[in-house]
Amino acid sequence: MSSRTICIVGVGLIGGSIGAAVRAHGLAQRVIGVGRRRESLQRAVEVGAIDSFSLELSEGVRQADLTIFCTPVDRIAEQIKQAARHMKAGSVITDAGSTKANIVEALEGELPERVYFVGSHPLAGSEKRGPEFADAELFRGRLVVVTPTEETNSDALQLVSDFWRSLGAEVHELDPTTHDRALATTSHLPHLVASALAGLVPMSFRPFCATGFRDTTRVASGDPELWTAIFRHNREALLGALGRLTDTLHEVSVALETDDTETILTWLNRAKRARDSIQS
Amino acid sequence: MSSRTICIVGVGLIGGSIGAAVRAHGLAQRVIGVGRRRESLQRAVEVGAIDSFSLELSEGVRQADLTIFCTPVDRIAEQIKQAARHMKAGSVITDAGSTKANIVEALEGELPERVYFVGSHPLAGSEKRGPEFADAELFRGRLVVVTPTEETNSDALQLVSDFWRSLGAEVHELDPTTHDRALATTSHLPHLVASALAGLVPMSFRPFCATGFRDTTRVASGDPELWTAIFRHNREALLGALGRLTDTLHEVSVALETDDTETILTWLNRAKRARDSIQS
Repeated sequence: MSSRTICIVGVGLIGGSIGAAVRAHGLAQRVIGVGRRRESLQRAVEVGAIDSFSLELSEGVRQADLTIFCTPVDRIAEQIKQAARHMKAGSVITDAGSTKANIVEALEGELPERVYFVGSHPLAGSEKRGPEFADAELFRGRLVVVTPTEETNSDALQLVSDFWRSLGAEVHELDPTTHDRALATTSHLPHLVASALAGLVPMSFRPFCATGFRDTTRVASGDPELWTAIFRHNREALLGALGRLTDTLHEVSVALETDDTETILTWLNRAKRARDSIQS
Repeated sequence: MSSRTICIVGVGLIGGSIGAAVRAHGLAQRVIGVGRRRESLQRAVEVGAIDSFSLELSEGVRQADLTIFCTPVDRIAEQIKQAARHMKAGSVITDAGSTKANIVEALEGELPERVYFVGSHPLAGSEKRGPEFADAELFRGRLVVVTPTEETNSDALQLVSDFWRSLGAEVHELDPTTHDRALATTSHLPHLVASALAGLVPMSFRPFCATGFRDTTRVASGDPELWTAIFRHNREALLGALGRLTDTLHEVSVALETDDTETILTWLNRAKRARDSIQS
């Protein structure tokens, strides 16, 4: 068992799963959870996601060698700045936020010397919430994007990358802006559209929502506050992706209106090839 | 075991599953498959979906008490008209097409006396194709919409409804036009949008397509020819639903541009409630 102390700030599904994985694999001597609600943290202890907890950020991070922030994206940078002042020299910080540019930029040059931040985004999770869904295997075979910049300490980058790998994840490096553009297309826009589709069905049509509808709109059950924060954080890239979608929908609409079978068929064929090239 | 003969025209996933269920529950003395490709029909016999087959529609339906057309929506009405001339008196016909108004209208007043058609749409299936995916339990607990009109023979309606119930399905009656409007919103538009999202991801971003993306776009792997036919058949209702979606996306886009957090949050909350009210 490693002799280090790991602190997890925000012990929900993601934070709880990180804690459960760390404890299952003996990757730390101690896993401390930090949060705002005692009951939730107590549940996290009960399900084996953390060893102990603190309601005080400054207290929780004091002994930590590695701290992972799993809070909503609009709180991460501020919390890291607050916490960093209480950390010991050599402490490494990462996060699990779904957006990266805003967070990385907000922290660059703002942390004490010998406290190191590396942005991360584990592409895992679900529409479920809370430590009771913690799963030590959540990251196995999943991708974690780490987003170093020229300012990033290379030892910290190595440590964070190795950490995610020790949870079973594959690690991929992207610059923060490219990460955000990619995720706008592969995650944030799909969430927005799924929500639009879910909101469009009048009560009387709900019985006719079969498997296809349920798959297509599943993510719309995600937490509205978390997703509002993600949308706002990644506004520019999301608006760009939304614009491209709207253009496509307009083209398809014209093809339907003019009964242009060839265009519709070609377009559906291309979409199918794209989808088939991605793991089911 | 029932003494009747059932004919299935188009023995793919749906047709094959109907055959497998009929045989599993002893609902017919004989299940005859009709199709165009001998190898596919032979596979259907091998997997137990049908007893025998014919490549000739006229031959296959001759002895049938009940014939179910599971072919693409743009072929169903024409095939039924052709087949009906060869059917015995009292024969009942239904279909499994995803659109109804076009098919029902095309057949009204066009069939021989004592041959009866009732439109059906089982809300079951997947993006998979072919009789090798036939599943005798595919319809258990699923909804089948039957779409009678004033012209529909009530004994035939009863027989078709009982037939679907004997496969484990729940049966719901809707008029054909309401069915098409409902399915435009709950199935055809989600398919169109899933295809648009799948087609939007450049090659370099594909590694970042996680569970959410895969769920949201899964249906885009469906058969492009089948879906082109469905879109064309239900063009009016689909364009209506697409218009409502585009309006919503525009509103969200404006809210994002003006950083109107309250509107985004309210909208996501409403979408979540709608989605949560539908079985996962």
